[in-house]
Amino acid sequence: MKDTLTYAVIGTGAIGGYYGAKLSRLGRKVHFLLHKDYEFVCAHGLRVSSCDGDFSLPQVHAYADTRSMPQVDVVLVGLKSTNEHLLHQLLPPLLHPSTLVVLIQNGIGLEADVQSWFPDQPLAAGLAFICSSKTEPGHIRHQCYGSINLGNFSCKDHALFQSVLADFCEAGIEAHEVAYAEARWKKAVWNMPFNGMTVALQTQTDALLSCPATRQLIYEQMMEVIGAANALGISALDESFAQKMMQMTDEMVPYSPSMRLDFDFRRPMEIHYLYTRPIAEARAVGFAMPRLEMLERELLFIDSQNVKL
Amino acid sequence: MKDTLTYAVIGTGAIGGYYGAKLSRLGRKVHFLLHKDYEFVCAHGLRVSSCDGDFSLPQVHAYADTRSMPQVDVVLVGLKSTNEHLLHQLLPPLLHPSTLVVLIQNGIGLEADVQSWFPDQPLAAGLAFICSSKTEPGHIRHQCYGSINLGNFSCKDHALFQSVLADFCEAGIEAHEVAYAEARWKKAVWNMPFNGMTVALQTQTDALLSCPATRQLIYEQMMEVIGAANALGISALDESFAQKMMQMTDEMVPYSPSMRLDFDFRRPMEIHYLYTRPIAEARAVGFAMPRLEMLERELLFIDSQNVKL
Repeated sequence: MKDTLTYAVIGTGAIGGYYGAKLSRLGRKVHFLLHKDYEFVCAHGLRVSSCDGDFSLPQVHAYADTRSMPQVDVVLVGLKSTNEHLLHQLLPPLLHPSTLVVLIQNGIGLEADVQSWFPDQPLAAGLAFICSSKTEPGHIRHQCYGSINLGNFSCKDHALFQSVLADFCEAGIEAHEVAYAEARWKKAVWNMPFNGMTVALQTQTDALLSCPATRQLIYEQMMEVIGAANALGISALDESFAQKMMQMTDEMVPYSPSMRLDFDFRRPMEIHYLYTRPIAEARAVGFAMPRLEMLERELLFIDSQNVKL
Repeated sequence: MKDTLTYAVIGTGAIGGYYGAKLSRLGRKVHFLLHKDYEFVCAHGLRVSSCDGDFSLPQVHAYADTRSMPQVDVVLVGLKSTNEHLLHQLLPPLLHPSTLVVLIQNGIGLEADVQSWFPDQPLAAGLAFICSSKTEPGHIRHQCYGSINLGNFSCKDHALFQSVLADFCEAGIEAHEVAYAEARWKKAVWNMPFNGMTVALQTQTDALLSCPATRQLIYEQMMEVIGAANALGISALDESFAQKMMQMTDEMVPYSPSMRLDFDFRRPMEIHYLYTRPIAEARAVGFAMPRLEMLERELLFIDSQNVKL
């Protein structure tokens, strides 16, 4: 293995842009794929306003097309999962046979789909716990948190996997290895109730928890996710985890999850990987999630009326 | 029994006002309780603009307080069920021991509650199939339909019950006797999905049925109501009734049910008798309605944010 890993970031937004910028500041060679703000970033680089201290990268390796990008050791995917199909075209120029692709995205079933398109490629899940946004060209605002957990999906080169973790840590990012499926489903315990319910009821986390009726509903939805995970053989999750998520959310500032922001900006919502897929995986082993299925259907209706044409 | 029945209407709105006015035009003595438009109706009477022909009643027996009203043979209750508790005070002045109280209201559990307050009083359910509204003082607009079904809850005087039916028919109202519990639950098959979903998704019946996701959800909610009815021993309802309700609604003009109108006018919604009670009755016999329970909770949240203080 080479001494120093090279990186590509697909989707230089609030998440991919943040982690890529931190690795770039560390001195790693990071190649950024940009879209709307490609010209701006070529001219001005990237700027990170962060609760951990601001920094700028006046010059970054910026690209408008992955066909101009070199092969790298690690690809960090920060795309919205509504664009997952674009990976068919975006990934191949970046890959040599042992390139590790890390999907820093929300949902269930992402790795399985990407693996089916690239059967021999090493894949990992990146589970980011971070509040950040990118609302101006080349400018990432990191409000709080910032850790990332990596779950190994199909990477047999453990040294490579550990080197990526080490790079994150050296860059000042809290990073841990976690069990893949358990970690994805744990995140779903929070994501599935709160992302959809803040959209369906046009509200934020705090209001949902302060009304007794929706507080109970959120808890029941969390228990549906935990039941599904158990049915799929993930035994580490039980009622205490739902209680922990309720308490954590009680202690958070009023929060609009990413799906609520997508709705507010009239972008398509990530319904497929956040709802449709986990519901289907649970159903395939005979477990029903009626409340989250209902929420999925409400969201499909809302999405059909909301998305900008 | 007397030759001619006397009537009182509690809640002279779109529904109670319409049926009371038709009986009054027939020549029956009808005493109307009014609230906001009492003064107007004293001065100008009631006016009915109807698809079956307009008519006016320049002079009606109008009251602002049931304590000034006489005892009658039949009370027609057209109150919003959010005000059901007011019957404690409103009814007693109107009742002799055999007065039949007809609850022309939506929901499940209304008769049981009123019976618990007035244990020996004969009660019936009035199931109105009518589109009407009252948006100006003393003026009822009857757009279409207009039939009423009466379900006997606790009236042992069958001659009285039949006389009321006969009065409705003579007044030009299609009226039939129906099996009480079956009729209430049949109406719930339509009411529970459409009332709440048009509020939760801020839409109308046609849009819910043209989106495949919500069409499926509405159907599943109807099947929850039918399952609950079956669990409660009402065997006359099966899947074919849900199919019939879907087809009927496909053929209707785009429609906002009464709960949607209550929401739009920021009035409290009839959540208790339309959702909480039927859900509790089904749960008491071990039948769960998860989708309608979730809808109930969404509505409780929406109601808590919507009602005018």
